[in-house]
Amino acid sequence: MKRIAFLLFAVAMVAGIVVTAAPTSGPDNEEVAAPIYGITIPSGYRDWRLISVAHEEGKLNDLRAVLGNDVAIKAYRDGKLPFPDGTIIARLAWSYVPSEENNKVFGRAQSFVPGPQPDWYLQFMVKDSKKYAATGGWGFAQFDKDGKPADEAMHKTCFPCHEPAKARDFSSPVTHLRAFSI
Amino acid sequence: MKRIAFLLFAVAMVAGIVVTAAPTSGPDNEEVAAPIYGITIPSGYRDWRLISVAHEEGKLNDLRAVLGNDVAIKAYRDGKLPFPDGTIIARLAWSYVPSEENNKVFGRAQSFVPGPQPDWYLQFMVKDSKKYAATGGWGFAQFDKDGKPADEAMHKTCFPCHEPAKARDFSSPVTHLRAFSI
Repeated sequence: MKRIAFLLFAVAMVAGIVVTAAPTSGPDNEEVAAPIYGITIPSGYRDWRLISVAHEEGKLNDLRAVLGNDVAIKAYRDGKLPFPDGTIIARLAWSYVPSEENNKVFGRAQSFVPGPQPDWYLQFMVKDSKKYAATGGWGFAQFDKDGKPADEAMHKTCFPCHEPAKARDFSSPVTHLRAFSI
Repeated sequence: MKRIAFLLFAVAMVAGIVVTAAPTSGPDNEEVAAPIYGITIPSGYRDWRLISVAHEEGKLNDLRAVLGNDVAIKAYRDGKLPFPDGTIIARLAWSYVPSEENNKVFGRAQSFVPGPQPDWYLQFMVKDSKKYAATGGWGFAQFDKDGKPADEAMHKTCFPCHEPAKARDFSSPVTHLRAFSI
């Protein structure tokens, strides 16, 4: 949907025709870099392979999937740390909503599925051990569902949360690797 | 891990050397067809793209990811039903366990991540409108983490649960398509 709109816009631009006024949100924001680390949304991230899933209760109340680019997936499967430069790990989050339809089938209230994307929909960790040496070799970024980056204050909170995981190159616990057995 | 073992075994077989005794479980089971519908585990399923995620409470108590082969992903993105023949949808499930490490970082008990794979780890829906005409065009299969198919009694329960979704070609509710916005 947005992706098709972006493609049409891009084609129109190449053809010298501006189909709409320069957008202030939407596809244009895919080029807007997030603060501090300067990361833009990597193209094709939605097609990356699955590393793991999780559910966060509390204030977050979301369902999340962790995807990785090819460098990331290879590193996880090789079981080798640290992650090589070029690793990108994406975390997608949706709100956590009951599925009435599934509950009817299961015969009880038990099923929770993705709802609307929250403000923290999309996060990335990008490995560049030179560029991001001050933060363990990782750059961080957060975007909402329209591709709009979160503010600088938000981006200051990324590394402190990851720092306790220093021994695992600031990444997810090994248990998530179960997501790869067979 | 198992995949590497399988590859080594395959290479050894080609070379005329049997590295181990013919296994009674593990890689060999990837060729064992599940009952009723006769489905074997499609190769490369773990590398398929993400359709959606979910959490089931109750007896299941699992975290799940739904992956699709290229035909499936295209059909979801085109928004067209019915799914074409050749569509395969995979459902992977892990037990639902708290993450102590994440809880420390978040400062409260809130984080749940994949644990060991349950018996119902791996399920597939395969679209073949001729072969599976009696069950809405879909064949169903369930395997455990070692690739061992579930029994016939289990496989009799698949279609009755999917039947209420007939209007959507027996598949997930539209809300899961949110997993595809941008």
